[in-house]
Amino acid sequence: MLEKINFPNDVKNLTKKEKIELAQEIREYILDVVSKNGGHLASNLGVVELTIALHSIYNTPEDKIIWDVGHQSYVHKILTGRKKELENMRKFGGIAGFPKTKESKYDAFNTGHSSTSISAGLGMARARDLKGKKNSVVAVIGDGALTGGMALEALNDVGFSKCNMTVILNDNEMSISQNKGGLNNLLGHLRTKRLYTRTNNLVKRGFSKIPKIGPKIVKRIQSLKMSMKQLLLKGNGMFFEDIGFTYLGPVDGHNITKLESILRLSQKIEGPVLIHVLTKKGKGYSIAEENPDKFHATSPFNIETGLAKTEKGKDFSSVFGDKLVKLAKKEDKIVAITASMKDGTGLREFQKQFPKRFFDVGIAEQHALTMAAGMAQEGMIPFVPIYSSFYQRAYDQVIHDIAMQNLPVIMCVDRAGIVGADGETHQGMLDMAFFRLVPNLVIMAPKNFRELEDMLEFAIKLKRPVVIRYPRGEEEKDQDIKENTNSKIELGKAEVLKSGTDITIVAIGKMVPRALKVARELAKKKKSVEVINARFLKPLDDNIIMKSIKRTKYVVTIEDGTKINGLATAVKELIVDKNIRSVRVKTFAYPDEYIRHGTVTELENLYNMSTKKIVEEIEKDIVSSKKNKIIKV
Amino acid sequence: MLEKINFPNDVKNLTKKEKIELAQEIREYILDVVSKNGGHLASNLGVVELTIALHSIYNTPEDKIIWDVGHQSYVHKILTGRKKELENMRKFGGIAGFPKTKESKYDAFNTGHSSTSISAGLGMARARDLKGKKNSVVAVIGDGALTGGMALEALNDVGFSKCNMTVILNDNEMSISQNKGGLNNLLGHLRTKRLYTRTNNLVKRGFSKIPKIGPKIVKRIQSLKMSMKQLLLKGNGMFFEDIGFTYLGPVDGHNITKLESILRLSQKIEGPVLIHVLTKKGKGYSIAEENPDKFHATSPFNIETGLAKTEKGKDFSSVFGDKLVKLAKKEDKIVAITASMKDGTGLREFQKQFPKRFFDVGIAEQHALTMAAGMAQEGMIPFVPIYSSFYQRAYDQVIHDIAMQNLPVIMCVDRAGIVGADGETHQGMLDMAFFRLVPNLVIMAPKNFRELEDMLEFAIKLKRPVVIRYPRGEEEKDQDIKENTNSKIELGKAEVLKSGTDITIVAIGKMVPRALKVARELAKKKKSVEVINARFLKPLDDNIIMKSIKRTKYVVTIEDGTKINGLATAVKELIVDKNIRSVRVKTFAYPDEYIRHGTVTELENLYNMSTKKIVEEIEKDIVSSKKNKIIKV
Repeated sequence: MLEKINFPNDVKNLTKKEKIELAQEIREYILDVVSKNGGHLASNLGVVELTIALHSIYNTPEDKIIWDVGHQSYVHKILTGRKKELENMRKFGGIAGFPKTKESKYDAFNTGHSSTSISAGLGMARARDLKGKKNSVVAVIGDGALTGGMALEALNDVGFSKCNMTVILNDNEMSISQNKGGLNNLLGHLRTKRLYTRTNNLVKRGFSKIPKIGPKIVKRIQSLKMSMKQLLLKGNGMFFEDIGFTYLGPVDGHNITKLESILRLSQKIEGPVLIHVLTKKGKGYSIAEENPDKFHATSPFNIETGLAKTEKGKDFSSVFGDKLVKLAKKEDKIVAITASMKDGTGLREFQKQFPKRFFDVGIAEQHALTMAAGMAQEGMIPFVPIYSSFYQRAYDQVIHDIAMQNLPVIMCVDRAGIVGADGETHQGMLDMAFFRLVPNLVIMAPKNFRELEDMLEFAIKLKRPVVIRYPRGEEEKDQDIKENTNSKIELGKAEVLKSGTDITIVAIGKMVPRALKVARELAKKKKSVEVINARFLKPLDDNIIMKSIKRTKYVVTIEDGTKINGLATAVKELIVDKNIRSVRVKTFAYPDEYIRHGTVTELENLYNMSTKKIVEEIEKDIVSSKKNKIIKV
Repeated sequence: MLEKINFPNDVKNLTKKEKIELAQEIREYILDVVSKNGGHLASNLGVVELTIALHSIYNTPEDKIIWDVGHQSYVHKILTGRKKELENMRKFGGIAGFPKTKESKYDAFNTGHSSTSISAGLGMARARDLKGKKNSVVAVIGDGALTGGMALEALNDVGFSKCNMTVILNDNEMSISQNKGGLNNLLGHLRTKRLYTRTNNLVKRGFSKIPKIGPKIVKRIQSLKMSMKQLLLKGNGMFFEDIGFTYLGPVDGHNITKLESILRLSQKIEGPVLIHVLTKKGKGYSIAEENPDKFHATSPFNIETGLAKTEKGKDFSSVFGDKLVKLAKKEDKIVAITASMKDGTGLREFQKQFPKRFFDVGIAEQHALTMAAGMAQEGMIPFVPIYSSFYQRAYDQVIHDIAMQNLPVIMCVDRAGIVGADGETHQGMLDMAFFRLVPNLVIMAPKNFRELEDMLEFAIKLKRPVVIRYPRGEEEKDQDIKENTNSKIELGKAEVLKSGTDITIVAIGKMVPRALKVARELAKKKKSVEVINARFLKPLDDNIIMKSIKRTKYVVTIEDGTKINGLATAVKELIVDKNIRSVRVKTFAYPDEYIRHGTVTELENLYNMSTKKIVEEIEKDIVSSKKNKIIKV
C-alpha cells in the first residue's frame, strides 16, 4: 500500500480497509527507519491514524496543519512527498526531523520547541480572515505541551477570537516525562466523559418514570442545564467551552473512521473547535508502548529486543545527576527542578533517592525558574537543569526574578553548544551570549566530567545565581589532562594548562581538551602555545589572559557557541579596554546564523571547529597576518 | 486613625469600625501622594480593604504575602513601616514603587513584571514544607495577570502539589487595558455564582414540595452532584477545583469583615485554596472609578478635576501610533498586536480606525509574538509594540519562531533605555544586547520622532524581522538637527551628522542629539568632533565608522543601554576584527548592574550620561590617555 502513496491525494482515494493497511505499513516503515537511525519513535507511532485522517479530510497545503513540537511529523512527512527521504532524515544533508517550511510547502510552520502551535495557528486564522480566504487551520498539540504557558495564553485568545480554527488535543496521557499537574487531572475527568453522560441519562430516565410530574422534572433539569450552560454544556469539555471553544470528543485516536467523522463534524461548526483525541504513544510496537519514555527519542536499537545497539556510557547529564545525588546527601537544602525532562537531564536517580526534594513542573520553564527563585529566597539551593535552547523560554525569569534579587539558583544548562541531529531549533548556540549580559550572574563551563563535578560543588558555595553550561554527550579526553590533577576552582580564575610563548589559546568548556590537541599539533610546527582554560565566561579572568596575550601578541579563542557576545567578544572587549596594541585575535565560534542538523562531528568540520580545521585555520591566519604585518609569530 | 498605625500589629488591634475609618484615611493619603507625585493609583485604591484584611489575619513577615506585579503594594507599604516614606516613593533615593526585599522584611519577594507571584509563592511553600515550618504563603494576583502563561503554568503545578498555599484572585474586571480573552469569560461565570446557587436552591425547593417522592429526588440530585463532583463542586469554581484548588468566593473585596472571615476559613483548609475577591479599581475616587485605565499609572493631577497638571505632549509612543495609522491606510496588510498595553504603546487611535486589524491578546507576550509569526507567515505585516523589559518574556518566540524563519514581524521596543521612576524591573537596559546576538534580526534606533517615522516605513520594505527601539517620553531637540533634512534610511547605513578630525562619536537612538551637543561643547575646546548616528546596531555600518576611526584614532560610543553587547561592544569587536592599531575607545553606556529608580535626568547624571558629564569624562580621558601615551588628541 505504502508504495502507491506519495501525496495527500493518494491517501484521500483509499478505502477504509486500505487506510488501515496503510497505517500498518507506515508503522513498520517508521520502526524500521528509527531503529536504524535513531529519532523520535513513540510519538510518531501514536499519530499514524490521526495523520492519515487529517490528510484524508483537509486539503494541504491550502489548509494549514501545525504540528506542535514537530517531533511527531514523520507520518506527515511520509504522506507529503518525503517517503524516501525519511531514510536520511536527521542526517547531514538529509531532511530535518521537524517540520520546515523551506523543506516542503506542506509544512505550514516550523516547530521544535513546545506549545507554539496554537499561537501560530491563530495568527494564520486571523490572517486568513483578513484576506477573506476560507482555508482551515489545525493545530495538533499534545497534552504535555498544553502545560506550557504560551499554549494556555493562546487558548485564551482563540476562545476570545471566535475564529474558525481547530485545536486537536492529542492526549496520549504522557508528555515526554510523565505528565504532571492539575491540568492533567482536568483532562482525566474529560477522559471519563462517558461516565457522566451515563449518570445523566440514568437520572433522566429515572425521573421520566414518575407519572405526570416526571417529564416536567426532566424538562426542569434540562432548563436548569440550559441556565447553567456554561457549566455543563457538553458535559465535560466545559473548561474549553467556557473559554469559547466547541469541545468534541473524546475520540479513539486509532480509529481512522471515527477520526474522519469527528473532523468532518468540526468543519461544520462556526468558531473555534477543540477535538479531544486519545492516542497511545508507541502504538503498535509493544516494547515502546510499555516504555514510551525510553522510546520518545531513541538511538538505534534492535527491533526484537528494544535494546540500544550501542550501550550508552557516561555523559555530562548523567555525571551531573550522579554528582547531585552525592551533594544532596550532604546538604539537605539542595532541591532539583525539571521541566518535564527528568531523564534527559539525568535526574532519575535523584528523584528515586530524594522524592520530596524533586520537582517536575511540566513543560513550564518560566514557572520552573521563578519557583526556584521562591525556594532560594527561603533558603533552599535549587538546581535547575534545562536544555540550552529551552532556557530561552525562561529568560525574563532569570533576569527579573533570579538575577535581580541575586538569589542562589544554580542554572544547569544542558545540551549547550552543538547538539547534532535535532538541528536548528535545538542547537544550544546562544546561552553564553544571552546570559553574559545579565547582571549578577556567574557563568562557568567545565572542560570535562571531573570539572563539572567540581563546579557543581563550587556553585553551592557561591550563594548567588550561577550558570553552568555543558554539552550533550561524552567528554573529550586528552592525554594532557590527567585524572585528579584538576586545579581548585576559584571565582573568576582561569587555569593555565600549558605554558607557551608564541600563541595564547583561550578555550572554554568542551573545547578545552581540543585546545590542548591543537597546541600539540602546532608544537610540531615549532609554535609554542599557551593553553588557558577560561572556566569562567563571567567574571572573565582578565589577569591571566592579559598576561599571556601581552607576551604572545596572538590570541586564539575557542568556544562551542555563537561568535557574538561569548568568549570571543569578551576577549576582544578586554583587549580594547586594556589598550593592548598590535594583538592579533583569531576566533573559533559558530557564525551568527541558525545551525542546521548533522552529527556533531560533521557540523564541527563544516564550521572549522575540529582539531584539524582549527590547526589549519591558525596556520593560514599566521601566514596572512605576517604578510599584512599584523603579527610576528 | 492612620496616625496611630505603623506596623501590622497596630492594624490587628483595631475594631471593625476603626478599620473602615483607616481604609478611608489610607485612600485619602494615597490619593494625596499620587496626585502630587504620580504613580499607580487605581490598583492601590482597589486593594485598601484587602490589604487591611490580609494584615489583620496573617503574621508578616513570618507569613509571606507576594504581590503580583507589585504596583498595588502602596497600602502594604503604609501598613509595614513605610507610611512617611510614601511621600518620597518612586523618587531618587526614596522607596520604590514596587516591593523590594532589600527595602523591608515585610516584602517577601520582588515583583514588577506580571504573573510571577504564584510561582514564587509555590517555591516558598515548598521550601517551608521541606524545612518543616508552618507559615502561610499568599499570592495576590489580578485577573489580568492570570492571562500570563507563567501564572497558568504555576496554577497547574500548585494544583498538583497539594501544598498549603493561598492564591487571592483580585478580580477587578479590568487589567491594565480592558481584560480580553476566554479566561475572562470563565471568570465572568464565576462572578455570577449567586445566580447558579439561587437557581439550584429553587430547583431543590421545587422538588421538595412534591409529596413523598420529592425528598428522594432532591437526594438524587445531590448524589448526582456528588458523582459529578468535579463538574459541580462549589458550583462555579470548578475549573480551579478541577485542577486541585479549593475555591472560595466570590467575596466583596471592599468588605473587611467578609474578607477576614473568608481568609480565616481558608486557613482551616488543607491544600491549595483560591479566594475569588471582587474589587473595583479606583474605588472611592469616582473619577478613577470611571477611568481606571487612565488612572492605572498617572502623572501628577488635580484631585478635583482629575486632569493632569502638565499636559502630555507628543512622545515616541504616540508618534509610533500616529505613523502606524498613516501607514495602515496605504497598506492593508499591516496589523497591530498588543499585550494589554494599548494606551501605553500608542495604539488607541489604530484600534479606533482599524478594529479588525488590531489585536489585544492580554498579558501574553509569548503568544503575541508567535501569533505575529503566524500572521507574517500568511502575508500580513505585524507591528508588535511591547516595552523593552517585557520583550524578555518573548525571547524564545523571537529566536525560535520569528528570526529562525526570517519572518517579517516588526518588533517595536517601547520604553527602551532608562525609564525612570518605575526602577530596576522596568528599565529597558538589555534589549539591544539580547537582540544583537539573535541571527537574522535587523536592529535600529531612531534619533528623534521623524527618524522613528522613517524607520517604521523602511521596516516594511525590508520584509524580514526588524527590531526598532525607542525610549519613553519626548525627543531631545538639537539645533544641529533640522526638520526635514533627514537623510534616507538604508539598510546598515549610518549617517554622518558632523565631520571632524580629532574625535569620532558614534551614538545611537536618543543619544544622538546629545552627541551633537557634546561635539559643540568640545569644539569650544578646540576639538574637532565627527558625529555619526549609527542608526543600525545590526548590521553595523563598519565602513563609515572605520573610516572615521582610522582618521581620528579616538572613538566615543554613546548609547542608552547596557555596556555589554550593545554599541560599545560592537565597535570594540570591529576594531579588533579590522586590526586597527592604537585606537582609544571611550564608551558611554550603563554598567552591568540593575539600575534603580529616579528621574531620567537624575539617573543620567549619576551614570555620566548627561551632556555635561559626557564632556567632562571625555576631557578627563584625553588627559589620562595622553599621559599614558595612548592617544595623540
